[in-house]
Amino acid sequence: MAHNATSDALAGLFEPPYFAVIFSSVRSGADAEGYGDMADRMMDLAVTQEGYLGVETVSNGAQGITVSYWRDEASIAQWRRHAEHQLAQKYGREKWYQSFRLRVAKVERERSFP
Amino acid sequence: MAHNATSDALAGLFEPPYFAVIFSSVRSGADAEGYGDMADRMMDLAVTQEGYLGVETVSNGAQGITVSYWRDEASIAQWRRHAEHQLAQKYGREKWYQSFRLRVAKVERERSFP
Repeated sequence: MAHNATSDALAGLFEPPYFAVIFSSVRSGADAEGYGDMADRMMDLAVTQEGYLGVETVSNGAQGITVSYWRDEASIAQWRRHAEHQLAQKYGREKWYQSFRLRVAKVERERSFP
Repeated sequence: MAHNATSDALAGLFEPPYFAVIFSSVRSGADAEGYGDMADRMMDLAVTQEGYLGVETVSNGAQGITVSYWRDEASIAQWRRHAEHQLAQKYGREKWYQSFRLRVAKVERERSFP
């Protein structure tokens, strides 16, 4: 999941502990067809999932980092198995991403400014 | 800490558990003076810190996400207290950032493609 929109600049503050999925990617230059629509759709769909808390996403075109926040590991597992999301993951590996890393991490503390 | 360079697109893979510092920010449009140099200097300096594992950073100009990876919480605490980094943090709050979130999270698992 990555996204070019500049909305959702910063996610809210949540009550630790909760979970972060850190998705960092390098786009394939070869075939971008359908990518933007799928990214938008995944973002819209993620928001409706049980346990979804928020998302932060930044892309410069070639590289992207999307961090989504979740209440627990069960919600992450459920979102991973979601049928439409599975299709997006398949296209991601086949067409859209040259490489990516996905890390699941437990957020222990946070601070914000201002 | 945020950065415009496109190097270090993806960090390596490390042996969980380790720690991630997720820094998401919205830049202040007002005063960008010195920001790029300081961001570069912080990146160069972070690499030399005890317990530093890697970094991923993407900016679109207005927004940025930088995720740095550390062996343990002690290394994060030490980097936070580093004198030059303290100065950068001060300028960040005074001049460069409109808002930010900083989250410390324990990475439990990861996967990569290809």
